[in-house]
Amino acid sequence: MGGLKEVCCLLLVSTLFFTFCLPSAMAGKVLVFPVDGSHWINMKIIIEELHARGHKVTVVRTATSWYVKEESPHYKSITVTLPKGVIIEDEDFFVSFLSKMLEIQRGRGSPLAFIKFFWEMLSALGIFTGRQVSWQWRYLKNQTLMEELRSTHFDLALIDPGTPPGVLVAHKLGLPMVFNVRWITSGEGHFVVAPSPISYVPTSGFAASNQMTFGERVKNAGYYILNNCIDRFIVSPPYNALMTRYFGPDANFYHLLQGADLWLMRVDFVFEFPRPTMPNIVYIGGFQCRPAKPLPAELQQFVEGSGEHGVIIMSLGTLLKGLPAEITSEIAAAFAQLPQRVVWKHVGERPKNLGNNTLLVNWMPQNDLLGHPKTRLFVAHGGTNGVYESIYHGVPMLGLPLLFDQFENFLRLEVRGAAKAFDVSNLKSQDFLKAIKEVLHQPSYRENMQRLSRLHRDQPVHPLNNSIFWIEFVMRHKGAAHLRTESYKMPWYSYHSLDVIGFLLAVMLALFGAVILIMRLLCLRMCRRQKSKIE
Amino acid sequence: MGGLKEVCCLLLVSTLFFTFCLPSAMAGKVLVFPVDGSHWINMKIIIEELHARGHKVTVVRTATSWYVKEESPHYKSITVTLPKGVIIEDEDFFVSFLSKMLEIQRGRGSPLAFIKFFWEMLSALGIFTGRQVSWQWRYLKNQTLMEELRSTHFDLALIDPGTPPGVLVAHKLGLPMVFNVRWITSGEGHFVVAPSPISYVPTSGFAASNQMTFGERVKNAGYYILNNCIDRFIVSPPYNALMTRYFGPDANFYHLLQGADLWLMRVDFVFEFPRPTMPNIVYIGGFQCRPAKPLPAELQQFVEGSGEHGVIIMSLGTLLKGLPAEITSEIAAAFAQLPQRVVWKHVGERPKNLGNNTLLVNWMPQNDLLGHPKTRLFVAHGGTNGVYESIYHGVPMLGLPLLFDQFENFLRLEVRGAAKAFDVSNLKSQDFLKAIKEVLHQPSYRENMQRLSRLHRDQPVHPLNNSIFWIEFVMRHKGAAHLRTESYKMPWYSYHSLDVIGFLLAVMLALFGAVILIMRLLCLRMCRRQKSKIE
Repeated sequence: MGGLKEVCCLLLVSTLFFTFCLPSAMAGKVLVFPVDGSHWINMKIIIEELHARGHKVTVVRTATSWYVKEESPHYKSITVTLPKGVIIEDEDFFVSFLSKMLEIQRGRGSPLAFIKFFWEMLSALGIFTGRQVSWQWRYLKNQTLMEELRSTHFDLALIDPGTPPGVLVAHKLGLPMVFNVRWITSGEGHFVVAPSPISYVPTSGFAASNQMTFGERVKNAGYYILNNCIDRFIVSPPYNALMTRYFGPDANFYHLLQGADLWLMRVDFVFEFPRPTMPNIVYIGGFQCRPAKPLPAELQQFVEGSGEHGVIIMSLGTLLKGLPAEITSEIAAAFAQLPQRVVWKHVGERPKNLGNNTLLVNWMPQNDLLGHPKTRLFVAHGGTNGVYESIYHGVPMLGLPLLFDQFENFLRLEVRGAAKAFDVSNLKSQDFLKAIKEVLHQPSYRENMQRLSRLHRDQPVHPLNNSIFWIEFVMRHKGAAHLRTESYKMPWYSYHSLDVIGFLLAVMLALFGAVILIMRLLCLRMCRRQKSKIE
Repeated sequence: MGGLKEVCCLLLVSTLFFTFCLPSAMAGKVLVFPVDGSHWINMKIIIEELHARGHKVTVVRTATSWYVKEESPHYKSITVTLPKGVIIEDEDFFVSFLSKMLEIQRGRGSPLAFIKFFWEMLSALGIFTGRQVSWQWRYLKNQTLMEELRSTHFDLALIDPGTPPGVLVAHKLGLPMVFNVRWITSGEGHFVVAPSPISYVPTSGFAASNQMTFGERVKNAGYYILNNCIDRFIVSPPYNALMTRYFGPDANFYHLLQGADLWLMRVDFVFEFPRPTMPNIVYIGGFQCRPAKPLPAELQQFVEGSGEHGVIIMSLGTLLKGLPAEITSEIAAAFAQLPQRVVWKHVGERPKNLGNNTLLVNWMPQNDLLGHPKTRLFVAHGGTNGVYESIYHGVPMLGLPLLFDQFENFLRLEVRGAAKAFDVSNLKSQDFLKAIKEVLHQPSYRENMQRLSRLHRDQPVHPLNNSIFWIEFVMRHKGAAHLRTESYKMPWYSYHSLDVIGFLLAVMLALFGAVILIMRLLCLRMCRRQKSKIE
């Protein structure tokens, strides 16, 4: 039952089919609201595929966007200029946020650091939410923009709800909505749509497995309560003010999210723990992965020249422009002591102690490098794109998680024995070197990652084709109401059956009371009879 | 965006692919425990497909089986002879059960009929459970059988857990388990695996939609409590006695069910209401449906001769051999007054008043008849096979639900405006005729069923191919642990976080107490000071 050949064959046929059998007959108009940074890398792949299949794509971008280009052969763009205080593609903001986070991590373990961490997170979230609401307001009140969008008669809005301006605009335009989602504002996609018992579903933000100790479950409940408080007291108020203004007093921001027709969730269960889901969630984790293409000549030469020891790849993703110089120097020192060659995606000052075996690059064809047979290890921050590419190609990872979901991502790989996470805030070259050697030389890391790779590649339809299928499904049928529960419209006490429980308790109490009353009356009558008999 | 052509093309390519590209390399050994009656029709299709793809299939059947033949080109069979008191393929039992049900339905609405209904259901379930446990015990203690099964080294057990002897045997043999399931013993597949809020998920046995009134939600809670009581007090005790004997004192029957690697659920969401699910549930509703093949000559002639009025199909499924003569006669009288021709699958005495337009048959190629362009209406009992075939071919239904899930099935179609249910217990020919004419002549029934058909056929992989893919997936990877939660192994109070809630309440109470205490101490001290000042 050697399945790999069949799976490759299946993927080939389904790709051929999706490329040659389906297009032409469909030509939908898709309105896209992307999120910048690494999220855009994902969205771009779907847009290119939609374009290849004959759909007309329009992307709404901001004038200050980092990655979303104004000109593209694959889409038409609409650019909106926002004032400086509103834009969230603010490099200074992220750099200062990261340095604060590293500082807090250094003092980790103390309750003070924990409080500081939350304070920084909450204030960053507060700033973010404020900017986003202001951003959305500028879209909604921009009558030229809204008229242009309305007159195009789009068939569908494809939205990354990581920044949700598109959700309100699409709702205003009455368009079917498909989300391309990893996590959203303060909560997390899964918790918004499917009932997720906190006893085995770790809350977003808490790095724990699905098999928690009692202490971890208490912490998980704490995170759950905290996330709910954030939703209620930080995120909802500014959003709902806007909602009331544009959609009436009963409108609720979270209901707009829950009303999406389909969620393309960038998750696969070789990575995520098994958890409840809903029929309108389609899992597309790793949809961006594909077999490696040949490397550019110079890089190919460098990689091939690594001999039996092979190559290590290092990248900290697209969002951050670099680590502090003292940490970079420690990393360079560790790399210099290895027999492997290293390709390091590095922006910023070149470390003085860089070894001859290390090649600094501004940009790298990450998927192609990870798919190269010489690649032995991927040192990364743990963004989901890189994680899935590493899983796809079966390359074990050493993690330097910095922000957001990166800590949780590495925990998921560590539980599977396919990666090791390392604390970047106190990075010393000798410890870092030891960790690299452990992942390189302990065969279990590679074996486990390759097991995950085999499971991940074994799917009836490639996740990219699946995404396209479901986007077109929503266009063909003008929504996917039959897959979406409307239970979120119930009052919370009805959803949780508290009114029914109350009613049943009242009935039981009334019955119990009636029985007591009857018994007392009977007793009374019997006593009287006995009395009268005695008298 | 006319999608039907593309969908047909997709199904064709995926079928071709699954037929020609994949086989040969895989040749697994599959052990099948089927359920008799209409369930077997489903299982047989999967077995034939597995056989066509080169797998060796062994079916464990009982000597008294109605439909599971001993000889087949598609599988090897192992026949077990059970004593009369144990077998559940007991026609007398079902006939007497049906006539009791019809009698109760006639007196519907009165609380007495309700109590009688439950009493009959519970006593039937008690008899069924007793027979099943005895049946399982005979498998487990049958050392020849167990040795034969063990020495074959199967790769997988494919089980319809409607009657669960296979679950215990597969567990004893340590085989990965795939369920082909619509509902199980007393509970229902979904409730066993995914958290299902009773506020919008109707409980198995209660015919209500997912948008319930307060009264319906109270009833739903009642059914939920009743089902739980049945599990705990009727089903579990005899099973757990057996479990303790063969699997040790900690073994639990429901855990065996929850431990299945994969659930092939004979459900599609054009029919079922959207509800929570789990990653190891694969929806294959309608997997048995396929384009119609030409009819046998005689039937073809009868159908083609119906002219512009077309044909009505009537069948009450495989389980029941016929309705009481007085009801059959009323049905025949109604049919005789129609301009349509009628093909009626009828076993038993021929009604004397049968019209010239009505053809009685012992067996019918149901899928091919439903797919014939002359077919206008399907009169049926509402078993899921017929319902899905009717959805697939877009033929509206008139329902005569009799038993089990048939009432719930029709409710689902009625909510979608694609069918009408009719009370068979008080059937009078004129009312029946009126109902037939309503479904025939009100275009919304046909339009709604055809909308369901379009949605149902629009899938990235045909559900039969999807079933085969996932069965082979479990064989290739020796299970599917990464898709299955193990949360069922937690104690119930931990699963529902009651221990965590208790702990948090205790902490809050302690904090509150401490604050009160400190305030009282401070008060006391202040009072003393003031006193001493005054003094």
